[in-house]
Amino acid sequence: MAEHHRFTTLVLSTVAVILLCSTPQPSALKHAATTPRFFEKFAASSTHHSQLDLHYETRYFQQRLDHFSFSELPPFPQRYLINTDHWDRSSGPIFFYCGNEGDITWFAQNTGFVWEIAPQFGAMVVFPEHRYYGESVPYGSREEAYKNASTLSYLTAEQALADFSVLLIDLKQNFSAIDCPVVLFGGSYGGMLAAWMRLKYPHIAIGALASSAPILQFENIVPPETFYDIVSNDFKRESSTCFTYIKQSWDEISSKGQTNDGLEHLTKTFKQCQKLKSTDDLFGWLESAYSYLAMVNYPYPSEFLMTLPGHPIKEVCRRIDQGPAGTSILERIYEGVNVYYNYTGEAKCFELDDDPHGLSGWNWQACTEMVMPMSSSQESSMFPPYEYNYTSYLEDCIKSFGVEPRPKWITTEFGGHNILATLKKFGSNIIFSNGLLDPWSGGSVLQNISESIVSLVTKEGAHHIDLRASTGNDPDWLVEQRATEIKLIQGWISDYYRKSKAVFDI
Amino acid sequence: MAEHHRFTTLVLSTVAVILLCSTPQPSALKHAATTPRFFEKFAASSTHHSQLDLHYETRYFQQRLDHFSFSELPPFPQRYLINTDHWDRSSGPIFFYCGNEGDITWFAQNTGFVWEIAPQFGAMVVFPEHRYYGESVPYGSREEAYKNASTLSYLTAEQALADFSVLLIDLKQNFSAIDCPVVLFGGSYGGMLAAWMRLKYPHIAIGALASSAPILQFENIVPPETFYDIVSNDFKRESSTCFTYIKQSWDEISSKGQTNDGLEHLTKTFKQCQKLKSTDDLFGWLESAYSYLAMVNYPYPSEFLMTLPGHPIKEVCRRIDQGPAGTSILERIYEGVNVYYNYTGEAKCFELDDDPHGLSGWNWQACTEMVMPMSSSQESSMFPPYEYNYTSYLEDCIKSFGVEPRPKWITTEFGGHNILATLKKFGSNIIFSNGLLDPWSGGSVLQNISESIVSLVTKEGAHHIDLRASTGNDPDWLVEQRATEIKLIQGWISDYYRKSKAVFDI
Repeated sequence: MAEHHRFTTLVLSTVAVILLCSTPQPSALKHAATTPRFFEKFAASSTHHSQLDLHYETRYFQQRLDHFSFSELPPFPQRYLINTDHWDRSSGPIFFYCGNEGDITWFAQNTGFVWEIAPQFGAMVVFPEHRYYGESVPYGSREEAYKNASTLSYLTAEQALADFSVLLIDLKQNFSAIDCPVVLFGGSYGGMLAAWMRLKYPHIAIGALASSAPILQFENIVPPETFYDIVSNDFKRESSTCFTYIKQSWDEISSKGQTNDGLEHLTKTFKQCQKLKSTDDLFGWLESAYSYLAMVNYPYPSEFLMTLPGHPIKEVCRRIDQGPAGTSILERIYEGVNVYYNYTGEAKCFELDDDPHGLSGWNWQACTEMVMPMSSSQESSMFPPYEYNYTSYLEDCIKSFGVEPRPKWITTEFGGHNILATLKKFGSNIIFSNGLLDPWSGGSVLQNISESIVSLVTKEGAHHIDLRASTGNDPDWLVEQRATEIKLIQGWISDYYRKSKAVFDI
Repeated sequence: MAEHHRFTTLVLSTVAVILLCSTPQPSALKHAATTPRFFEKFAASSTHHSQLDLHYETRYFQQRLDHFSFSELPPFPQRYLINTDHWDRSSGPIFFYCGNEGDITWFAQNTGFVWEIAPQFGAMVVFPEHRYYGESVPYGSREEAYKNASTLSYLTAEQALADFSVLLIDLKQNFSAIDCPVVLFGGSYGGMLAAWMRLKYPHIAIGALASSAPILQFENIVPPETFYDIVSNDFKRESSTCFTYIKQSWDEISSKGQTNDGLEHLTKTFKQCQKLKSTDDLFGWLESAYSYLAMVNYPYPSEFLMTLPGHPIKEVCRRIDQGPAGTSILERIYEGVNVYYNYTGEAKCFELDDDPHGLSGWNWQACTEMVMPMSSSQESSMFPPYEYNYTSYLEDCIKSFGVEPRPKWITTEFGGHNILATLKKFGSNIIFSNGLLDPWSGGSVLQNISESIVSLVTKEGAHHIDLRASTGNDPDWLVEQRATEIKLIQGWISDYYRKSKAVFDI
């Protein structure tokens, strides 16, 4: 296998991994901040998908840009979606989704669970947007907000949590709902925010459902190979030949790329709209498909990132394995990833995802706080081997944003090491829900920590499937998982009212 | 009583209240940011006091100026005192005092308890200095750091807690002490920091002894009259005539001040070095004395703020009550406060405390986050009546610093409302210790919240007396209080090792 093929860091987006691959620049393979798959890309295309029929009002809240200093900075409008139709004003809870790295309307669409259960709880529903995403950008425009390291410098998780807290206190006051309990929800990075917010702001929210929240994907808490190993196992469990074809394909591509007209051939084989400039581009395109497939490997047809059949990896492997006799490995691979990129058959050719400016919000976050080491092991992974190297990561971030990451900051601020011991007698009311097919599950909490900081693990679940709207095709384990979540949340709320009453009675 | 006499906000300093009084400016009586009694004033004079014979090394740690953004700002050196003489390197805890608003060497001197118990715990002792105080100032000099609102803007409690966390993680790594449990200590504002740090950074510290920490002195959590009512009661319990003399004295002073040569007379009666410019100055001078006396109303002679006899308020009231027949109220008052300002009899005349620049660090904190409403009630207080008025407070802060306070921020960030219900099943291992003679006790936690978030209340205790070095004169209740604290801390440490072992055994 060609030595120069290296993985770049996985960057988490929304649902949503951003699997980064080496870039076309010949100078250096990139690690953190270039060629991400934008979540926004999917968000934009989501209008083609079937939509939930949601009713909400869109409002804006004037937020402070820096909560933790008294620097004079311009405030910015934070968008939030709100629905009070079913809210029981006397005692109904506030269901608050911790918006993550993208347009909040898209998260609202893909978090049907919260909307579905709100009526039975008499709950108000609030979906606030994360700063620097969607319409909630400072400095007047996305362009200004993303101009440079200085304007981007307030795009951090701590600031986002403070936004949520300030907004909630304001909402409670304005709705005369000071005593209404707040329950947090979040998936992926939003799940991390939900869990962290419950830990940091227990006076504001009584509990959190943190779905597919890889809060342990930092430093050396989980092995850096975890993510790619899980993706690889998702393929291997369907078919070991499929796994092997994929594992072999990288060398094939590299060899082909080194021949005369090799790139042209590859361009044709993989129906790229533009001629490939390097095999690295193709690596990235394929790696992304596999990783996203692992995340959305749902048991029923879905249209979350792309239009896909149920159990999409099964279908990918079926096509890879069952290529007609004499079909080359690369042709099989193409047939396979076609399930991901073109299940509807509408695409005539494919555009590489490109981020010419290297300035997506998540890339900034990955280059500052969200430093998640990712490697790909020679043995257990089907991806090209890659060893995480902080030095190159750092160099890349300096080059892309002129910023130096703080790889230890998240664990300093939020913890993570020895989480079992730390939270055994500290904190309460957090559900960490995970599906083991989801490659992010490996960096999440998969054990009960205490009586009320619990882990719900489903063997066949993928990326925060529990937060999605229910469907007629939901398997029993999913129905049961959601029922358990509802029961736990009900328990938090009863407990809250019991305690308040007890204090009042003193 | 003259209408224009109004209290200004109490500002907490160190031990250490900063009782603000109206200023000499005729324009407006000040509320938050002018004429504080600097803690530094006392720190400077503390060299005249008896010193503990402490052994420590002084070191400096390069700190980030803004932990919560990625703005490019110059780092600053944080000073810390460290002693590892008694540290058991295999498993000894780290005793970490959360430095508050002043020179850290002075806190080290006045926190003998930590030094005394360290050997029996095999503990390392660390006293880090709070940013912007002592030698730990950014921008190269105190002058630069305090230049304006922009340079001061990073002087916040959250940043200070992040400093402590980053420093601790670095120390643990450098001493190969990753698994050594950290126990936090703090008194007054330092106690608030200790409690908040245990709540916000449970992964870094296993518990906190928060002595005289008025974390509920914000917004309307406790009535704004609390502080002055406690001071007043401290006098009333010694003598109701003493209380009445003091209560009457303000009108006497006001009347006198309005007569010809009145200010001159007052200047002489109260042996002021400089001629009084207004009676407000004198009000401030007296109010400070009473409030500080309440704080350091220790049962044995002490030299914390000033050289004082044991039970100093008893002595003040003895002198006020027992003035020779025919002595005027004001002469009695003078004799009384002389106990505070001149117990050694060395002073020939008195200088008013002045802060011509209005730029002490605590004043900045009071004008930004630490907005503690303080009123003085017409009925129960011996002070001139004053009703807290946020509008004037705000105006004053804008005038003094060009900054707008955020009066709700501390409760948003750290909680406080409904603390019993919030922390009943959240958090662990905090001791809130308070002496009821201390006027700050009213804003602190005086009830057990849970099995391990407990309150130790002593009826005869004053401002964080438990943290002081033991003396031959310690009353039994103080000896017992400290023994209880030691036992609780031992319990946290055993529990920590039990849990770590349990996790390791899994």
